[in-house]
Amino acid sequence: MTIHNFQPTVFYNTIGSHPPVLHIADGDTVITPTPDARGVDKDYQEVARRGNPMVGPFYVDGAEPGDTLVVYLERIDPNRATGWTRHVLAEMVVDFEYVHNLPVPQPPNEIIQWNIDPVACTASLVEPNPHLGNLTLPLKPMLGCFGVAPELEQAISTATSGNYGGNMDYNGFVAGTTVYFPVWEPGALFHLGDGHAVQGDGEIVGTGIEVSMEVQFTVKILKGKTIAWPRGENAEYIYTAGNARPLDQATQHATTEMLRWLVSDYGLDITSTSILMGQCVSYELGNMYDPAYTMVCKMPKRVLNTLPGR
Amino acid sequence: MTIHNFQPTVFYNTIGSHPPVLHIADGDTVITPTPDARGVDKDYQEVARRGNPMVGPFYVDGAEPGDTLVVYLERIDPNRATGWTRHVLAEMVVDFEYVHNLPVPQPPNEIIQWNIDPVACTASLVEPNPHLGNLTLPLKPMLGCFGVAPELEQAISTATSGNYGGNMDYNGFVAGTTVYFPVWEPGALFHLGDGHAVQGDGEIVGTGIEVSMEVQFTVKILKGKTIAWPRGENAEYIYTAGNARPLDQATQHATTEMLRWLVSDYGLDITSTSILMGQCVSYELGNMYDPAYTMVCKMPKRVLNTLPGR
Amino acid sequence: MTIHNFQPTVFYNTIGSHPPVLHIADGDTVITPTPDARGVDKDYQEVARRGNPMVGPFYVDGAEPGDTLVVYLERIDPNRATGWTRHVLAEMVVDFEYVHNLPVPQPPNEIIQWNIDPVACTASLVEPNPHLGNLTLPLKPMLGCFGVAPELEQAISTATSGNYGGNMDYNGFVAGTTVYFPVWEPGALFHLGDGHAVQGDGEIVGTGIEVSMEVQFTVKILKGKTIAWPRGENAEYIYTAGNARPLDQATQHATTEMLRWLVSDYGLDITSTSILMGQCVSYELGNMYDPAYTMVCKMPKRVLNTLPGR
Amino acid sequence: MTIHNFQPTVFYNTIGSHPPVLHIADGDTVITPTPDARGVDKDYQEVARRGNPMVGPFYVDGAEPGDTLVVYLERIDPNRATGWTRHVLAEMVVDFEYVHNLPVPQPPNEIIQWNIDPVACTASLVEPNPHLGNLTLPLKPMLGCFGVAPELEQAISTATSGNYGGNMDYNGFVAGTTVYFPVWEPGALFHLGDGHAVQGDGEIVGTGIEVSMEVQFTVKILKGKTIAWPRGENAEYIYTAGNARPLDQATQHATTEMLRWLVSDYGLDITSTSILMGQCVSYELGNMYDPAYTMVCKMPKRVLNTLPGR
Repeated sequence: MTIHNFQPTVFYNTIGSHPPVLHIADGDTVITPTPDARGVDKDYQEVARRGNPMVGPFYVDGAEPGDTLVVYLERIDPNRATGWTRHVLAEMVVDFEYVHNLPVPQPPNEIIQWNIDPVACTASLVEPNPHLGNLTLPLKPMLGCFGVAPELEQAISTATSGNYGGNMDYNGFVAGTTVYFPVWEPGALFHLGDGHAVQGDGEIVGTGIEVSMEVQFTVKILKGKTIAWPRGENAEYIYTAGNARPLDQATQHATTEMLRWLVSDYGLDITSTSILMGQCVSYELGNMYDPAYTMVCKMPKRVLNTLPGR
Repeated sequence: MTIHNFQPTVFYNTIGSHPPVLHIADGDTVITPTPDARGVDKDYQEVARRGNPMVGPFYVDGAEPGDTLVVYLERIDPNRATGWTRHVLAEMVVDFEYVHNLPVPQPPNEIIQWNIDPVACTASLVEPNPHLGNLTLPLKPMLGCFGVAPELEQAISTATSGNYGGNMDYNGFVAGTTVYFPVWEPGALFHLGDGHAVQGDGEIVGTGIEVSMEVQFTVKILKGKTIAWPRGENAEYIYTAGNARPLDQATQHATTEMLRWLVSDYGLDITSTSILMGQCVSYELGNMYDPAYTMVCKMPKRVLNTLPGR
Repeated sequence: MTIHNFQPTVFYNTIGSHPPVLHIADGDTVITPTPDARGVDKDYQEVARRGNPMVGPFYVDGAEPGDTLVVYLERIDPNRATGWTRHVLAEMVVDFEYVHNLPVPQPPNEIIQWNIDPVACTASLVEPNPHLGNLTLPLKPMLGCFGVAPELEQAISTATSGNYGGNMDYNGFVAGTTVYFPVWEPGALFHLGDGHAVQGDGEIVGTGIEVSMEVQFTVKILKGKTIAWPRGENAEYIYTAGNARPLDQATQHATTEMLRWLVSDYGLDITSTSILMGQCVSYELGNMYDPAYTMVCKMPKRVLNTLPGR
Repeated sequence: MTIHNFQPTVFYNTIGSHPPVLHIADGDTVITPTPDARGVDKDYQEVARRGNPMVGPFYVDGAEPGDTLVVYLERIDPNRATGWTRHVLAEMVVDFEYVHNLPVPQPPNEIIQWNIDPVACTASLVEPNPHLGNLTLPLKPMLGCFGVAPELEQAISTATSGNYGGNMDYNGFVAGTTVYFPVWEPGALFHLGDGHAVQGDGEIVGTGIEVSMEVQFTVKILKGKTIAWPRGENAEYIYTAGNARPLDQATQHATTEMLRWLVSDYGLDITSTSILMGQCVSYELGNMYDPAYTMVCKMPKRVLNTLPGR
């Protein structure tokens, strides 16, 4: 149950079977800063190459293919005073013909800055916008990109995601959440980064409010517990994440994984699971911007708690 | 401001430029029963052909192409003691390879019955399921299929949906909601039916809890106000519905329509709208079962209320 | 075996259960002019509303739901000296981000003219283009939009297509082809129009070379023969057309219908059909422009002719 | 201009920045055997792990990011007497509801054997099928999976494909074809394998006739020539390959790349390119089975040869 105060010096722009930066044990806790999506840290130093640089991989001793890695996201705190976003809707989220109307801002004007106020728990536009003023939104800090090494010793760009996690950009991955990943390679090889102080569903401008973070997480291995896609849990829901294009397929993955979960862990058969899911699931759109889109299928615990024998 | 107590005798399984069943005026209210998706009414009489038979069309005097029809959904109350659902996940919502595992119940066993308790405001399984007991869920009555006649004097099956509304199967269309439809044909020609006592996101078993309803709605014409897709509004959100396959395209329609709405009615430009939508929208999955899928894009009023000058 | 020299005076912009313009018998032949996609005829008169106006419907006496209507396309000849096309790639056929680069020509400059030379059998640009000169292409006249009334007495815009045919915009529907349609409504109610003198795969500028035509076709009823999607046949191939979005689903429809065809008419089982199709099918892209896209699945007769017992 | 007779001993199941197996020069030729998709060589020895094991990577001295690697496919010859295929249509190529009808053969019965006759140039079923006899098809040997290392030092499973090539399973990649790849990493790092003696469009049973091959290819570097997606050329066509899901997006990539090619190398502008492509392109379906599908956009040389100044 060691607590590791980790200071990253190596960063990867792929998630893969890289040399581990640290070995940790089942039950250990790691506290680490993460740079933002462009590799800029809390002191505004560019410490890593842009494109969702990852801290890690952390080798979890004893984790083997076929196990499940549990990651308790305990703290995800912005650790500097400002973040940034793109500010035009992405081409793929509007009608084909509408794309002509979207402006195409050129660097460095393709991003705008937001103040992060950790006391008020808000993010607000640094420059007042004529139409929005200093638009101020409640913080809801999350991890955009995190996961374990994919199978076959692949190394896959942190632009995308898959059954190993990755750049899912789902705004439900906040502190207090438990996340489950299938283990594909020895040690699981957990990576994390790409913090967002705020993000709407779909990440439809291509970013959340991108900021460096201080993250604390604890790992646990479920030996011999095999899952197929990332799963999560919070006080109100269990949920599954499917990552693919088009959204239909992402939804199919998430729905199938929820079905498997209910069948294997709640003792249901396919028909009873269908009855339950048919009238009770909700979905959330993680992102519709990255090379793989993300859909999340959620089942409320308040309903599961009414099942016989629970 | 007449209140019409309507008793339907003619039903259509398409939404189109059919002879109106009633002319109503701007501001009028209609109270009507609607049979369930199989045409069965409150007395369990099969009064219409199965496949989402519609009550209507109601000709709204003065509504012309280019206007917007506002429909206030004031009451959607199940008017009998039982409803029914399919009870196996639809093939298109699971992974391709998983379809082999889904049972294929044959009629009449492809549906199960639910008790509707209007006092307790719950639906519960009539036959206890070994895994679910008498699963009991809170009622959230909604209209699955409603809309106005599509352009070009088309008549389109109530299985599907489009920019005229139709079988959107979105569980947010509940009493207390205001819905906006583009008017494509003179009189708008409003149709309604296909009530669900409860429905999960996505309508992933192919039905909600299907039941006949007593519905009360009031219409209003917005002269010269032109919109492109159905819109809605409740106490917390304004929202837009996009209907198409795949989900990507449904999402594009909904997102583009929300952008148009914010630009035209809130005085924003495309960039400020993008900033706002990028960090604040949420999406809901109406259905992923019908020939056209439905995605809903929502913007919270609490954020809109913070905009300068509002 | 009557030959009807038909002169259309009524045109529909939907395919549906409209009053028939003519009753014809099993085995009859019809010769009719068809106006172009904008309703302009051989004398350059605008005789119909733009948007693929249809000639018909022709009521085929004796055709009933569950039968198959055979249409022999005997002659499809441009009957005037010029046709027209759009001249910029459609937004949906290029990468999302590339749309910004596409010009948006405004009417009347959104179309260009082509000379049709029936002797040389060519189409060539009227105005020499600086890069293309008077680009000259071989004629391959086809019908873009034709089919039978869809089920449920629907009337569906000639912009789109479905299991009843419609705006498939497949450049294989040329003279010499036999086409099969499922019959959904009594009399089949055959419609036709939207001739193209030339068209690339995918109709990726949104049009072929649009021209009025002189068309001759003969109908035949296959009593009790039930099919699910349009089928076709020429000297070299049998083929099936699937119409849907995205292309994946259009391909699924076409592939499934080919499988059904081989199983029902060639005495194969699913496995032998799979072996055959897996190594022998080819696909063609009808259109990727209309609301429903079209994919065609083709099986070569030279292979079918090698099967035992044939 | 060395000819390298290469004997592979190391194989990768990913395409990536692996240690090169050989350095070759611009203009060099390599002759190498490739094992089949399950790693079985010409002597029926399992020399590599199953899942499209690759020969290579070959480091082409002087190739740098931003260049184009030209690969002349000079010889692709099956080098043993039998190959194998799966024999049931894949779930994703049929209608959702039809999947229930597909048999699910279990190993080792999920594959069937074919004789390869290099003299007659045919493949035929080893075991006569009751419906197909010894179905005999002309050989058309091709490479299913080949390409260069992707950017960011990624290593990506040979199950899939992207802008670096990979498992495109396009039956046009035969001997006599010239293929162009964008160079993403120093030395290009060319990989190849997964030969098919025959394959229908779409690879709809999940395999071609899988066989080990003797392959001869020659490489050339186009310094400073930058392309975005794989391109090809044969006697009749130039073509581009787009790899993605759904097919719509694969088609968008291929179409956009053809547009770029014609603009950059044929001196056309976007409008003239559109005119040309709109009436002249054809498409071929590479595969609709792998994680990324492949569509090919083709432009006939006979048309290009008529352009002014050529």
